Amino acid sequence: MRANKKKAVILLSGGLDSSTVLYIALKKNYDCHCLLFDYGQKHKKELLRAITLAKKTGAGYTVVKISFPWNKSALIRKGGGDIKDASAKLLFTKPSSLVKIKNLPSTYVPGRNTIFISYALAYAETIGAERIFIGANAVDFSGYPDCRPRYIRAWNNLIKSLGAKIKIEAPLLALKKSEIIKKGVALGVPYELTWSCYRGLKYPCGKCDSCLLRLRGFKEAGMKDPLSISMRYI
Amino acid sequence: MRANKKKAVILLSGGLDSSTVLYIALKKNYDCHCLLFDYGQKHKKELLRAITLAKKTGAGYTVVKISFPWNKSALIRKGGGDIKDASAKLLFTKPSSLVKIKNLPSTYVPGRNTIFISYALAYAETIGAERIFIGANAVDFSGYPDCRPRYIRAWNNLIKSLGAKIKIEAPLLALKKSEIIKKGVALGVPYELTWSCYRGLKYPCGKCDSCLLRLRGFKEAGMKDPLSISMRYI
Repeated sequence: MRANKKKAVILLSGGLDSSTVLYIALKKNYDCHCLLFDYGQKHKKELLRAITLAKKTGAGYTVVKISFPWNKSALIRKGGGDIKDASAKLLFTKPSSLVKIKNLPSTYVPGRNTIFISYALAYAETIGAERIFIGANAVDFSGYPDCRPRYIRAWNNLIKSLGAKIKIEAPLLALKKSEIIKKGVALGVPYELTWSCYRGLKYPCGKCDSCLLRLRGFKEAGMKDPLSISMRYI
Repeated sequence: MRANKKKAVILLSGGLDSSTVLYIALKKNYDCHCLLFDYGQKHKKELLRAITLAKKTGAGYTVVKISFPWNKSALIRKGGGDIKDASAKLLFTKPSSLVKIKNLPSTYVPGRNTIFISYALAYAETIGAERIFIGANAVDFSGYPDCRPRYIRAWNNLIKSLGAKIKIEAPLLALKKSEIIKKGVALGVPYELTWSCYRGLKYPCGKCDSCLLRLRGFKEAGMKDPLSISMRYI
């Protein structure tokens, strides 16, 4: 019975990580309410996949339309440059060097996770949810300062300061991409329905940071990406 | 020279508190960039006053259109009830009882300040500002948990966790409304241009929480509200 379940807000992008997190929260028996953002992404493929996944699992979902009028990230339609192919740095940087990174990747959107979590908090307060699930991950190199354990702890501290009985869970924080994939496969995540590519082409480009991390993850997990089977990479 | 000044983001609503904060930041010689939100308020009067003030002072300003699709606050057009006249509790509650308040006022918007600050942070990161000024105030009763010193400290801790060199300043946090007004008058804040009333009528209603706090503040400061002189209260 949904009425007896405790509620959770899931920050769902439609990518590999957040989709896995949705299945983790479902497995934990939460009544899941997915929060999706239309923030002027260059393409809507990931967002549409998120809607498909929410519907498939029977989770509730809300799309919030927000804007970053000043934004310079390459992930945003207006402004920013093109998505770049993955750099060699991406492939060879060890996790421990994360904290030293000075130059943020062009796909970094200042404050994006902070804005997303603040919305999730507002939503959780409104519907009476006790958990917020986020797919933040600090192991595979991303260079994003808003994907680190310290940041999630700071958020939980901020929520406490408000007197709210809500906690953020980031179950992928310490996992490698291959470990995330193994966990997801065991939970039955339909990875063929997810979308990771930064480019919004018909098929994943197989060359951007996000594609390469995904491909490497499946390889390390000893599996084949169902997207590459069902749709082929270009 | 603006080029030599350090930048600050000002969360400006057009109300008495945030307008005073804009003048405090200008006095501190910051190059001020005001951030205004169009979040579906029942009326736009406060927002229009904020634009007027930004223009008058020569500060930059950006209006961000955001939505709270699930919102139940009485301050939002869709959903929530009507704005209520101030309760007796408002007038007699001592500041020290703040932390014990269980029933939030109907005008509380869950997560609103958190969302505003997260945007201010994103904006500050983008333009290279080193300060975020907010008019949060914990002395005059508001019942809002997101206007307390602990909450601002938790935010500064969160910003540190991101490695950002930005600090939130809430210079009104410990001031009574009458003290804010005295400070503002000394700085030349044109209070006749600000707007506090929760209702969006031609004149301030003089009966809602916000009007009563303002009227009491001017009375305690031994001054007359220029709004009541130039426009009269109804």
